[in-house]
Amino acid sequence: MTKPYIRLDKNDAAVLLVDHQTGLLSLVRDIDPDKFKNNVLALAAAAKYFNLPTILTTSFEDGPNGPLVPELKELFPDAPYIARPGQINAWDNEDFVKAVKATGKKQLIIAGVVTEVCVTFPTLSALAEDFEVFVVTDASGTFNHLTRDAAWDRMSQAGAQLMTWFGTACELHRDWRNDIEGLGTLFSNHIPDYRNLINSFNQNSQQK
Amino acid sequence: MTKPYIRLDKNDAAVLLVDHQTGLLSLVRDIDPDKFKNNVLALAAAAKYFNLPTILTTSFEDGPNGPLVPELKELFPDAPYIARPGQINAWDNEDFVKAVKATGKKQLIIAGVVTEVCVTFPTLSALAEDFEVFVVTDASGTFNHLTRDAAWDRMSQAGAQLMTWFGTACELHRDWRNDIEGLGTLFSNHIPDYRNLINSFNQNSQQK
Amino acid sequence: MTKPYIRLDKNDAAVLLVDHQTGLLSLVRDIDPDKFKNNVLALAAAAKYFNLPTILTTSFEDGPNGPLVPELKELFPDAPYIARPGQINAWDNEDFVKAVKATGKKQLIIAGVVTEVCVTFPTLSALAEDFEVFVVTDASGTFNHLTRDAAWDRMSQAGAQLMTWFGTACELHRDWRNDIEGLGTLFSNHIPDYRNLINSFNQNSQQK
Amino acid sequence: MTKPYIRLDKNDAAVLLVDHQTGLLSLVRDIDPDKFKNNVLALAAAAKYFNLPTILTTSFEDGPNGPLVPELKELFPDAPYIARPGQINAWDNEDFVKAVKATGKKQLIIAGVVTEVCVTFPTLSALAEDFEVFVVTDASGTFNHLTRDAAWDRMSQAGAQLMTWFGTACELHRDWRNDIEGLGTLFSNHIPDYRNLINSFNQNSQQK
Amino acid sequence: MTKPYIRLDKNDAAVLLVDHQTGLLSLVRDIDPDKFKNNVLALAAAAKYFNLPTILTTSFEDGPNGPLVPELKELFPDAPYIARPGQINAWDNEDFVKAVKATGKKQLIIAGVVTEVCVTFPTLSALAEDFEVFVVTDASGTFNHLTRDAAWDRMSQAGAQLMTWFGTACELHRDWRNDIEGLGTLFSNHIPDYRNLINSFNQNSQQK
Amino acid sequence: MTKPYIRLDKNDAAVLLVDHQTGLLSLVRDIDPDKFKNNVLALAAAAKYFNLPTILTTSFEDGPNGPLVPELKELFPDAPYIARPGQINAWDNEDFVKAVKATGKKQLIIAGVVTEVCVTFPTLSALAEDFEVFVVTDASGTFNHLTRDAAWDRMSQAGAQLMTWFGTACELHRDWRNDIEGLGTLFSNHIPDYRNLINSFNQNSQQK
Amino acid sequence: MTKPYIRLDKNDAAVLLVDHQTGLLSLVRDIDPDKFKNNVLALAAAAKYFNLPTILTTSFEDGPNGPLVPELKELFPDAPYIARPGQINAWDNEDFVKAVKATGKKQLIIAGVVTEVCVTFPTLSALAEDFEVFVVTDASGTFNHLTRDAAWDRMSQAGAQLMTWFGTACELHRDWRNDIEGLGTLFSNHIPDYRNLINSFNQNSQQK
Amino acid sequence: MTKPYIRLDKNDAAVLLVDHQTGLLSLVRDIDPDKFKNNVLALAAAAKYFNLPTILTTSFEDGPNGPLVPELKELFPDAPYIARPGQINAWDNEDFVKAVKATGKKQLIIAGVVTEVCVTFPTLSALAEDFEVFVVTDASGTFNHLTRDAAWDRMSQAGAQLMTWFGTACELHRDWRNDIEGLGTLFSNHIPDYRNLINSFNQNSQQK
Repeated sequence: MTKPYIRLDKNDAAVLLVDHQTGLLSLVRDIDPDKFKNNVLALAAAAKYFNLPTILTTSFEDGPNGPLVPELKELFPDAPYIARPGQINAWDNEDFVKAVKATGKKQLIIAGVVTEVCVTFPTLSALAEDFEVFVVTDASGTFNHLTRDAAWDRMSQAGAQLMTWFGTACELHRDWRNDIEGLGTLFSNHIPDYRNLINSFNQNSQQK
Repeated sequence: MTKPYIRLDKNDAAVLLVDHQTGLLSLVRDIDPDKFKNNVLALAAAAKYFNLPTILTTSFEDGPNGPLVPELKELFPDAPYIARPGQINAWDNEDFVKAVKATGKKQLIIAGVVTEVCVTFPTLSALAEDFEVFVVTDASGTFNHLTRDAAWDRMSQAGAQLMTWFGTACELHRDWRNDIEGLGTLFSNHIPDYRNLINSFNQNSQQK
Repeated sequence: MTKPYIRLDKNDAAVLLVDHQTGLLSLVRDIDPDKFKNNVLALAAAAKYFNLPTILTTSFEDGPNGPLVPELKELFPDAPYIARPGQINAWDNEDFVKAVKATGKKQLIIAGVVTEVCVTFPTLSALAEDFEVFVVTDASGTFNHLTRDAAWDRMSQAGAQLMTWFGTACELHRDWRNDIEGLGTLFSNHIPDYRNLINSFNQNSQQK
Repeated sequence: MTKPYIRLDKNDAAVLLVDHQTGLLSLVRDIDPDKFKNNVLALAAAAKYFNLPTILTTSFEDGPNGPLVPELKELFPDAPYIARPGQINAWDNEDFVKAVKATGKKQLIIAGVVTEVCVTFPTLSALAEDFEVFVVTDASGTFNHLTRDAAWDRMSQAGAQLMTWFGTACELHRDWRNDIEGLGTLFSNHIPDYRNLINSFNQNSQQK
Repeated sequence: MTKPYIRLDKNDAAVLLVDHQTGLLSLVRDIDPDKFKNNVLALAAAAKYFNLPTILTTSFEDGPNGPLVPELKELFPDAPYIARPGQINAWDNEDFVKAVKATGKKQLIIAGVVTEVCVTFPTLSALAEDFEVFVVTDASGTFNHLTRDAAWDRMSQAGAQLMTWFGTACELHRDWRNDIEGLGTLFSNHIPDYRNLINSFNQNSQQK
Repeated sequence: MTKPYIRLDKNDAAVLLVDHQTGLLSLVRDIDPDKFKNNVLALAAAAKYFNLPTILTTSFEDGPNGPLVPELKELFPDAPYIARPGQINAWDNEDFVKAVKATGKKQLIIAGVVTEVCVTFPTLSALAEDFEVFVVTDASGTFNHLTRDAAWDRMSQAGAQLMTWFGTACELHRDWRNDIEGLGTLFSNHIPDYRNLINSFNQNSQQK
Repeated sequence: MTKPYIRLDKNDAAVLLVDHQTGLLSLVRDIDPDKFKNNVLALAAAAKYFNLPTILTTSFEDGPNGPLVPELKELFPDAPYIARPGQINAWDNEDFVKAVKATGKKQLIIAGVVTEVCVTFPTLSALAEDFEVFVVTDASGTFNHLTRDAAWDRMSQAGAQLMTWFGTACELHRDWRNDIEGLGTLFSNHIPDYRNLINSFNQNSQQK
Repeated sequence: MTKPYIRLDKNDAAVLLVDHQTGLLSLVRDIDPDKFKNNVLALAAAAKYFNLPTILTTSFEDGPNGPLVPELKELFPDAPYIARPGQINAWDNEDFVKAVKATGKKQLIIAGVVTEVCVTFPTLSALAEDFEVFVVTDASGTFNHLTRDAAWDRMSQAGAQLMTWFGTACELHRDWRNDIEGLGTLFSNHIPDYRNLINSFNQNSQQK
């Protein structure tokens, strides 16, 4: 009667980063820019860390929408990169869908700008083709809280699971023992409070 | 187990604008008036742009509720205009339902004032008759956040999809190549941040 | 697949006012006290106006919880009044359930303090016995937004419909022509913005 | 079509307190620290009061995450205490699941830090094994409102019921007559407004 | 070096209510309408209770600004009533200033709509003529918080004292023993929390 | 001991619009973009309406800061326009100061982006040269509320008066009878609530 | 030209706790009750810790205002306790002023309920008699943010210094070496985040 | 009558960074941690960029307060570093004051944690010795908004100027032509929106 527990599996997941472009980012006002930048880079770093196949796509990057955020391009130099010639829903672009399917993964981790369009549309399309979709809500941004709430409702009701970059990383990692330092570094780089905990702990330990 | 992806189709959609009257607008306090005015006119402009059959209706427009916002009347001079003699739920008015059905469309895009009454009631009625309903949440307004949240929950649980004017326009357009300039103008007129992007881009391009 | 449209019917609805007591009201901090007082009295006035069978109940009214708000008692001098000897869920009190069933109504309009207990518990119990439950969210109050959100989610997921006093009154009335003045007075007394519209309109009309 | 009313039963419920550690608590920013401390201790006091089997677990307590909040350890000196060697989802730890199952209870009351990981993961796992899960939302904390909202949606959609510590205590107690003083003391210790009501009432009564 | 303590004195104070008109009230969005209505009526009731000379003034009341709120007119049937023919700053109207000066009072308690114009302008003018001005901030309203903050700063820096209706009433009354019941009734009518305290206390006392 | 009442005088005031550039506008996050755009255009329209000498200035308009908002340029085609080659404080630019002094006005109405730099710096410089400075707070924008509050405090403590575009227009106009229609049009174009009042009033009047 | 730095001196300071009564506390809505209770007790604990002469006073404690919060009475069993027979401004009560002057201190640390009356009035009176007044803003509460802001402005403009309980304790203590454990305990008891730091540190240190 | 315009001069300014320690940072809740970390590092980068003498100080860094944030230490390896043995007000530490005076600068730019203590106390002390103090408000943090507002008021009333890191950098730089690339890099590194503008601009320019 309710959604089953579909658990993220690092062996069966791909990451789709949709339209994080320098122009479009000026539209994002439901998250503070310092935090949003951090969240997007944290998700990207997690994708990299877990070696998840990652697909980049942009919309009209030669116009006002602006180029892909350079940090993303640098982080994934070999990732499929689909500069869509016009399709608003990335899933309407054949190359994009091909790239997704070429990963052979059933679980899709999606984030993008703006939430109710660039994230919601491919999310709904992927669900319709029976992918398991995990929306990284805090690495997706939009005009304001109202538009965010509406978009979340539409996606959740259609079967998507609403995640955060931190929850995504934790669910993929499962056990700290798989690599304590790696995950610790990821968190230290992107969670100031966690970095402070580590720095306090280390100093205290070194004083012994 | 979840709502299927029902996608807006510009060939199968009609727009219902319910009770955007000058008096009733003073009741809207969940959205700032500058933004709300913009959202309503943006939805109307989108309806016009996509040539969607549009139906206007008002409640007691000769009394304190006040006349329909003049801009809407001017934008749709030939649209069916149902000044309801008393029915609170527009769907209880035969002429209104006739007008809706006369469009031959299965998808209804609804916005109005106030959300929990003028929008929710016809939404639930239309769903009960198997229409596919898309509520434009940010072109609908009400007393405060609490009343909005309650109304959204009622509509979503009944099967309506919660949209925004921007998401609606994007889902209808599907591909920028269908008309880049038309959609760009719509966005430039109603999204200041987007207008700024375009203006910056154009100046920079002209400098070449 | 979704909740059907169960529409409030003034011939088949009863109102349950649960624990609006002078002591418990000091716990309500998710709605401003001026507004909350207004909302509760507005719902009560609507119940009176539509002649809906109304049931009052309190919890430990001789102790710190305090007596029922006097205005409610005065408004419904002949209503069943169940001062519960200890049951937290009013539905656990036989007299209360008997009183509810004695109304012969299938639709229950519920409001109370605090939302996650005094409203949620009888709501869930009534749903379990196949009543149709309409929660008047803005005439129900609790400690803060977090507790409200959790309670709403629990009730909505269990099948309750989330209403407001204004939406409730409008859905019960259906058509202004049933009594323009009566409904107008109700709104004028409890919606300052609406009262202003009426006063502006009347002065303007009298100037003719 | 909707979730049934699964009612908390003090004879069939266990409490799981997950990762309330002194370091991790610095990550909690969706609830004010004074209130959050109070909520966690209130839930613990309620668990104690109702003699519910309670299980404590921590993650890496010798590192930056810090030790379990001392008050919890003192309150439950004999409770199963699982210091997980690395599993992020407590349910992935065999000892933890064994301890849960050893209680013989079907209803699990869960709270922890942070909500979208330490609470959500075991909640989803327990639901998958047909436990009835009650999440104590206000004794669980996370980075901000956005992450909270996403976590709540994921858990609710999977079948968990969203509770608060106060609602949990009330649903467990059911009738004040089971022990007026005990419940009153619990509330007086953790709800300042309620304590004030009691103090005002007592002084007034003593003046007689 | 700082403002001296100029204390309100009921024998030396007059009340100026500026432009509380039914149309202009729709512009007030920095205070919720239920609360604002209450605050304005509370200040008026206090003015009445302390028999302070009160002056009413409006701006273009035959046009869109609308008539004076009827309750104010009814409360002060014999008060000077200056319907200004066009002056935006009431102090620019000779009749208004004459009426103010005719009271022979040195202390002016001012409230109105909107704060940065109808309140600020006469406040600054009165200060310039060495009146002692007390602005009743919560019975004055404007477009939003930003405009309010700017207006308060301008008035405070010019020497006005920022008050609330409650502080005004308390400073005028000075000692409960002057009339316990009168002041208690004023508070009970306009502070729901206080009314609850009184009702709880009375019931408890009657039980003796 | 306090600031005197320096009143805006349309015969002695000039308007300085500083750095309202399409790029810099993306930095403004203390006011919603729909509202901010409206406020800036409203101030410009007021400057035009009152025929106040107006000076435009930009910073590095050929780079990322972007060009002046086109609407401003169109509105003031003949205004002095100083594209500063590098000075951050416009007052450090000789041409700008010359243009200001050439107006022969003693009162300066200033707005710009961002508040704590482009507005605050010339404000402090102008005060130091004994100009009377009126900051139009709601036509000035910056990163967030904290930066705004700090900037306002600095300017107010230095002697600037904090205004809004509406207060500025009202103080300049002084008496509606100077031109009812002109001021009414200005307000109707930039205050949706006021436009609604006018439209309601007109319809009602026409029905007579 | 500005306020000099008057520094709190534990040898020259007294504490005045005004009207922290169980009934009046229900009026406080500008601070969350958990936090407010903590702040008041923290200030009291600090007064105790620094052995500052402390004066308690109440208004009508036998009526709806309710008795003094019991914890305060227990903490200061021998403190002057003035149950005022009616004066709203404690400074109007001779016994209170005598008690204040009997302390021989020039610096007064004041907190109370509600801010704009019970705190502001004696603050202004004490300033008028050349006491140095330090208002503990977070141990003082009132109806809402607007009333708080107005009260703060009035007190600050009159020469009071706005403090918090934490700043007060730190300024009184001056040097941790005066008593590390004592101050540490005060902070650990009233600042959950600080308690967590200490607990993390201690565990880490013990592991050495 | 008002504060004069004291303008930051890079040749006469020193920077004091007070108690940005890994433990104390967990107390900061008036600014989001992502943004606060950015602001502190931005101020430090600006101090570096302008070669301002910078002084670091900490309080009890071997205990729970934790070590100085490592990034700050790395950025200023040769700066005076005063680990205070106990003085809460850094100005009470002779070495600190000596270090300040040794810079020979009259303007002090101060930031720290927490605002009402570690920033306010030395600010007031420095003002008392006739330094010109510029508080960098957004690189200073504290428990919540209330404590921040109280601290700002105390400092501003005593003569400090409230700045932000961005305003500080701009006032120090004065003219972009002094070094366009240097300042641009500083902004690009610490203002995501500005970085986006630059990236959009550059791509567009390169397309030429």
